[in-house]
Amino acid sequence: MTGLLRREPRVVCAGLGLLADAIARQGTPVTRVDWAPPMPGAEHDLATVLADPRRAQANELAVGRMLGSRAQLVDVAPASEALGLGPGEFLHAGPPITWERASGPMRGALTGAALFENLTGDPDQAGRCVDVLEPCHQHRAVGPMAGVVSASMWVFVLEDPSDGRRSYCSLNEGLGKVLRYGAYSAEVIERLRWMTAVLGPLLRAAVRRNGPVDVTGILSQMVQMGDEAHNRNRAGTLMFLRDLLPAMAESGFPASDVADSARFIGGNDHFFLNLAMPACKLAMDAARDVEGSTLVVAMARNGTDFGIQVSGAGDQWFTAPALVPDGLFLAGYGQDDANPDIGDSAITETAGLGGFAMAAAPAIVRLVGGTAATALTATERMYEITLAEHPLFGVPSLDFRGTPAGIDVTLVARTRVLPQINTGMAGRVAGTGQVGAGLVTPPAEVFPAALAALAARAAKAG
Amino acid sequence: MTGLLRREPRVVCAGLGLLADAIARQGTPVTRVDWAPPMPGAEHDLATVLADPRRAQANELAVGRMLGSRAQLVDVAPASEALGLGPGEFLHAGPPITWERASGPMRGALTGAALFENLTGDPDQAGRCVDVLEPCHQHRAVGPMAGVVSASMWVFVLEDPSDGRRSYCSLNEGLGKVLRYGAYSAEVIERLRWMTAVLGPLLRAAVRRNGPVDVTGILSQMVQMGDEAHNRNRAGTLMFLRDLLPAMAESGFPASDVADSARFIGGNDHFFLNLAMPACKLAMDAARDVEGSTLVVAMARNGTDFGIQVSGAGDQWFTAPALVPDGLFLAGYGQDDANPDIGDSAITETAGLGGFAMAAAPAIVRLVGGTAATALTATERMYEITLAEHPLFGVPSLDFRGTPAGIDVTLVARTRVLPQINTGMAGRVAGTGQVGAGLVTPPAEVFPAALAALAARAAKAG
Repeated sequence: MTGLLRREPRVVCAGLGLLADAIARQGTPVTRVDWAPPMPGAEHDLATVLADPRRAQANELAVGRMLGSRAQLVDVAPASEALGLGPGEFLHAGPPITWERASGPMRGALTGAALFENLTGDPDQAGRCVDVLEPCHQHRAVGPMAGVVSASMWVFVLEDPSDGRRSYCSLNEGLGKVLRYGAYSAEVIERLRWMTAVLGPLLRAAVRRNGPVDVTGILSQMVQMGDEAHNRNRAGTLMFLRDLLPAMAESGFPASDVADSARFIGGNDHFFLNLAMPACKLAMDAARDVEGSTLVVAMARNGTDFGIQVSGAGDQWFTAPALVPDGLFLAGYGQDDANPDIGDSAITETAGLGGFAMAAAPAIVRLVGGTAATALTATERMYEITLAEHPLFGVPSLDFRGTPAGIDVTLVARTRVLPQINTGMAGRVAGTGQVGAGLVTPPAEVFPAALAALAARAAKAG
Repeated sequence: MTGLLRREPRVVCAGLGLLADAIARQGTPVTRVDWAPPMPGAEHDLATVLADPRRAQANELAVGRMLGSRAQLVDVAPASEALGLGPGEFLHAGPPITWERASGPMRGALTGAALFENLTGDPDQAGRCVDVLEPCHQHRAVGPMAGVVSASMWVFVLEDPSDGRRSYCSLNEGLGKVLRYGAYSAEVIERLRWMTAVLGPLLRAAVRRNGPVDVTGILSQMVQMGDEAHNRNRAGTLMFLRDLLPAMAESGFPASDVADSARFIGGNDHFFLNLAMPACKLAMDAARDVEGSTLVVAMARNGTDFGIQVSGAGDQWFTAPALVPDGLFLAGYGQDDANPDIGDSAITETAGLGGFAMAAAPAIVRLVGGTAATALTATERMYEITLAEHPLFGVPSLDFRGTPAGIDVTLVARTRVLPQINTGMAGRVAGTGQVGAGLVTPPAEVFPAALAALAARAAKAG
């Protein structure tokens, strides 16, 4: 102890700047540690959950399953066949929602889907055609933006080769006036009809001829090529095209269909998003239902609510009103035109990509705003709230350190650091389409809500 | 003046650490400036050239032409047609060389070309089949590694749309046992025959059907996607494939040829190198022959000598023995197996890509060695010896600052900072093929030699 008195004091000050300032004024070096109290109201539940003896092992198991998941594209099929959807049955993005509470872009997309399915010719009658409306997530599917899937749309079928589990996602339509952003004009419906008549069947023939496409392998490569797999899927799209084109050429389809499909995919840098998302869904589904685990297994938005699901809390959604993203707008649009956050695409962030991998994709700031430092900082902060570094997603500029992967509810509640999501922005008025892209977080309230459920389960188990 | 005495001294110390240390020991803050004397023997010529009144304007003109050049792929054709090569006539990489002085990989590539052209069936007789041997650069062409072009090989034909100037480069064969690395086994010749029978004609049909392909546009994009266009051409290759595949599908060629060609291009991440190089050649040729300009317009190696050409010194080569690159080796090979530096591919560095753009391609260090910091530092140092920042090659991690472009002989001689080249390494024994990849610089002597010629011309003009 006397040693302490004989040498110069070394002071570490956590949180309050006032104390650190006072010591610094006395000429003593002080190391400042950024610290804040946990989220308000979460203190008691946090203590309960942190004390849950099952937690460490449960998280290790859940994270191991997430990181061990691999995704292959094994088929392309109509949703009626792959998901068993019938007329009047629709899937949507985010936690459960009714037509009555649905936002403009969600209603716009459902309207377009009803027109596409010939359930009505009158956009104003679309609401009456919606007999069943359920979350994609409930059907092992994910959908970007409004995420609406109806029976005649074709979907990618992904499979984890280790256990045969599957996930599903619609085919990407491109940008601008497209269904997933809530547009339903004639050009939107026309494009969907071509995708159903030509693109889907041709891709199915190519995949069946080629054999499974290694989607996880492409994800791993694209992170080396400036993509973060949410709002930049440029390299991923090109690699998908490369892998499937020989089989497309040899599919027996007319050369003009092959050329049109190659042009459509090659002309849409976001095409691979609809393969990245179900690959992440497969990984996160692998981590579900581990009792005691505090791992977030889904973050999803329906344009009204933001919801999360947690491994140790079953299928329960913890929801709060979705925030409006902050970012850059297409010409003619501004903040007032933006709908609150929408889409299942935050499954990419849930799995260690998207906003969590922005350091690998500095060019993303040209789309969502900010500087190269914004992208680096976003990734670096996410290490504070995640349980692992993804061994397959090495960030070149961080000397191939794995992206932060696996959000822990307790770390979010303790640090108040919210998951960073980058996202497209839909117009709030049905029929508008895309208005911009930007950055957003979940509403903070969903984490204490999840923590309360985990605490109740821990108490019951303990 | 008395103000100087009344305030604290502010000391800046250039070069010698000894003086700075002495001041620091007296408790006075000192700003250290990294400085070294110019290259030995270059002082007088440097003074002459720096005093040349034509220099500033000449460099502005030359650099403006370089940065303003655009490259389109307008055709694919046999070298007999595009370059007028006949039997026994061969082009090679680097400054002029004879068979007698040629290195192992250069002789190996010439041997393979002679076998491919059916000039002989005996590898040992190949040297006798070489009637004409001239640099690619002399024929507005460039060739990676040995860079050997013979009459029956097909070449890309690039054109600058603003003035109709053209440049040429062979089609890339892939990695490993390939002609350009000096291999000439049966599989090498077989592959060249397929390229001549199928790939070349199919690409010609596709380019003619599609119209010109914007090679500069792809270069600009690929720098956003982790490529530096010398040893990483992954995204470039994918974009080239994307742009040409629809026309390939509709070319009328059998689906199996289309599929085989798509597989060949898609399976070779370096395919686009042979488009990047002639695009850079077009840009640097635009800057040639400006009297008084100190801009380097070519850096090229033949496996024995390294040569540079300078805008203000006509077609004269300034040469010195090529160095051996330092880097990583393929399994089974080591430093002793490496041939000295070889190839025209340093035209990419000459134009602001390759080693100069490594900050945009941190994953390159996995190929050539080093860490992400190596890549960043390489680019940052090159700003010291270049005249411009390339407006089309923005580095994402440097907030889209243009790559350092346009090497100035006077800046190299004054700072002793040598151009950073990253490169493949050929085995020194003919027939070996690739043994590794790494980093290299020109031999320093070529810069004082060029400076002496520039000084002589300046004296004559002045």
